[in-house]
Amino acid sequence: QFRLNKWLLVQIGAVSTITVIIYRLVKKQRQAEYTKNVLFFPDSHIPCRKYLLSPIGCTKNDCRLSHNEKSSFIKLMRYILNAQKSLKLCMFSITCDELAQAVTTKYRQGVVVKVVTDTEYMNLNGSKMHGFLKQGIEIRHDRSSYLMHHKFVVIDEKIVVTGSFNWTHAAVVGNTENVLVTNNPEIVRPYLNEFTNLWEKY
Amino acid sequence: QFRLNKWLLVQIGAVSTITVIIYRLVKKQRQAEYTKNVLFFPDSHIPCRKYLLSPIGCTKNDCRLSHNEKSSFIKLMRYILNAQKSLKLCMFSITCDELAQAVTTKYRQGVVVKVVTDTEYMNLNGSKMHGFLKQGIEIRHDRSSYLMHHKFVVIDEKIVVTGSFNWTHAAVVGNTENVLVTNNPEIVRPYLNEFTNLWEKY
Repeated sequence: QFRLNKWLLVQIGAVSTITVIIYRLVKKQRQAEYTKNVLFFPDSHIPCRKYLLSPIGCTKNDCRLSHNEKSSFIKLMRYILNAQKSLKLCMFSITCDELAQAVTTKYRQGVVVKVVTDTEYMNLNGSKMHGFLKQGIEIRHDRSSYLMHHKFVVIDEKIVVTGSFNWTHAAVVGNTENVLVTNNPEIVRPYLNEFTNLWEKY
Repeated sequence: QFRLNKWLLVQIGAVSTITVIIYRLVKKQRQAEYTKNVLFFPDSHIPCRKYLLSPIGCTKNDCRLSHNEKSSFIKLMRYILNAQKSLKLCMFSITCDELAQAVTTKYRQGVVVKVVTDTEYMNLNGSKMHGFLKQGIEIRHDRSSYLMHHKFVVIDEKIVVTGSFNWTHAAVVGNTENVLVTNNPEIVRPYLNEFTNLWEKY
């Protein structure tokens, strides 16, 4: 009788241990499922800039502009506005008011902002680069006749936002575009390295 | 004595079952780690076209062109050339000889090829679209003055190749570009849906 109980105890112990191991494996597996988000443009919603960028939000009762958090443009803005430490932009062209304003807002809040861009497009009509420079944001650019054609941002060294999407008004409201967002370190790391390489090279 | 042996057998059975469950969980977790590959351009290597595209490969003993499987351009070409069933291209601009030749080679081998592109860039000098049409490849394009600005390919409905990279010669040898490749279904699915939506709309 005693022997049976002893074996029962051993068995309960073994099953408990193995249950804990399984629980940890499942937990690890869940953690391995990183954020992935694919956004498509054009976005038919014109977002309310006050809702997104004003410290007090939009106070209009009858505001007709979009406050829809599911729209591609508002999702993209949220990724930028949620930056805590750094924004490393590698962007061929920036002319979009809202996105440029989001960047300067974060810069004024103390987020480190670094911008790599293309020499020729930097001086084009509507470029936000001169505004960035006036604010004190550091910008570096290529010295070649080829294009610095990247369109990616690394946020807090943890999230990469990439795709076909330049930060232009046309890309938001007219062009057919895709944006891929992920925090998978195996993808973020090479983009971060590429940013650092270009920053040091230019 | 008999009772003890019985319990021992039960215990061995339980441990075996749990081991199989753990093995399957670990296997599932490994399978959840999908392929991810980030390629950067420009590529300083000029690939040997015979090595890549000729059925007999490159027969030159002193070939000075690149046969380097680690170069970005050869890796990109391999993804296209390994297509088994379908190539769904959503590409703003195609002027690169090697990539266009890879597509027509696959088409002749019986791979389903569908191309979505931008109306204006379709007719530009050097565009490979007319060559595709002559071969019998079906092409659809937008009808707007905005750009069909995507630069992605869905291969066999299983792999997506996306990024800033248009299929141009400048993008290979001069521009600063990124290409992201993944077979994660959560990323492939939205790109495949976008392709189908545009294909039906245009």
